[in-house]
Amino acid sequence: MDKVKIVEIKKSVFENNDKDAERLRGELKSKGVYLLNLMSSPGSGKTTTLIKTINLLKDKLRIAVMEADIDSDVDAIKIKEATGIQSIQLHTGGMCHLDAEMTRQGLDNLDLDGTDLVILENVGNLVCPAEFDTGAVRNAMILSVPEGDDKPLKYPLMFSVCDVVVVNKIDVLPYFDFNLGKCKEYVRMRNPHAEVIPICARTGEGVDAFASWLLDQVSIWKQ
Amino acid sequence: MDKVKIVEIKKSVFENNDKDAERLRGELKSKGVYLLNLMSSPGSGKTTTLIKTINLLKDKLRIAVMEADIDSDVDAIKIKEATGIQSIQLHTGGMCHLDAEMTRQGLDNLDLDGTDLVILENVGNLVCPAEFDTGAVRNAMILSVPEGDDKPLKYPLMFSVCDVVVVNKIDVLPYFDFNLGKCKEYVRMRNPHAEVIPICARTGEGVDAFASWLLDQVSIWKQ
Repeated sequence: MDKVKIVEIKKSVFENNDKDAERLRGELKSKGVYLLNLMSSPGSGKTTTLIKTINLLKDKLRIAVMEADIDSDVDAIKIKEATGIQSIQLHTGGMCHLDAEMTRQGLDNLDLDGTDLVILENVGNLVCPAEFDTGAVRNAMILSVPEGDDKPLKYPLMFSVCDVVVVNKIDVLPYFDFNLGKCKEYVRMRNPHAEVIPICARTGEGVDAFASWLLDQVSIWKQ
Repeated sequence: MDKVKIVEIKKSVFENNDKDAERLRGELKSKGVYLLNLMSSPGSGKTTTLIKTINLLKDKLRIAVMEADIDSDVDAIKIKEATGIQSIQLHTGGMCHLDAEMTRQGLDNLDLDGTDLVILENVGNLVCPAEFDTGAVRNAMILSVPEGDDKPLKYPLMFSVCDVVVVNKIDVLPYFDFNLGKCKEYVRMRNPHAEVIPICARTGEGVDAFASWLLDQVSIWKQ
């Protein structure tokens, strides 16, 4: 397997993460780089979704990926092998989230010259990552069908900070008690403006809609 | 729907959680109460597994349940309605885990007289709950098939602190790329003594094996 760069993330020293996140967003804006923070539960299909999305967009945008994980480096390697784009692994050393300064440590290890879009795959966790602004322009999350349509009721903060909720694994809808209409309703209780995009990352169904959303976002940001 | 008691959990004041957890275990031992800490990702099927397990054991053991959740109370109500046992909801107010002192706040709201077994359903999260000893005699976790067989590689601490890993949703094995043999191998890399029990909580398949494990545990503890 290909080797990827592994960055061991250190604890932040900044006390005011919100201010630091605003500063980071300003720096990225001046460089013309759009940062997307992608969150989800463990096993929702973040990496597969990313591979399919990147392969639809890589001729239109220069993309780089930072894969945060507590310990392993399998995801960054998978992304690199399946898409050929710049991909690094961030090791959080047990930490359950990333804040702006930790995100900056990752960005410092990417070549951002000419890069349009950086996607941060956050630690698989619906609680802590939602509490820390990473400096991203937008937050996205993936909710997979087997997790259940009630998750916006149980993890309110996560759903209120996300601008788009990708509902993955819709191919297994017949085998689970998951109501897409109810799910949309619960998501909008938390954030009335959130987009809900149903996909099946494995087959690629619906991924074009997520890719279009992302392409629009980047175009607006770069204007 | 039935009303259940809701306990708003406060942040702990104790600095040394490990010591406090040992103290709590001692108190529970002297009362003859076995505490099980049940952890998992969001949507792995903790509540359904508990309902099926409790219904198999409630004639043999006096059981109570504490359902930890950030905000909602649906799980405690479900347990109470489906099993009739003592069930309370712990609201963590955004906190991503429970430690020993928070667990004690929950126990203080239960009638423990004659109770053999208390099950704590921890916050759905594979990262933070693993870091805090709750004072439980044993840790158990549920890994559901759709999450993938590689989770022990990605969340090493969670799998190393658990004595039993219940693999749920085995009815959907044909639709997912999940290898039970590989999963067992990865679990044992983290904890060579961990039991792995495949079940389908929805149909009840395999739940008797988990119930037997738990009954044995409680019998040994009460000797």
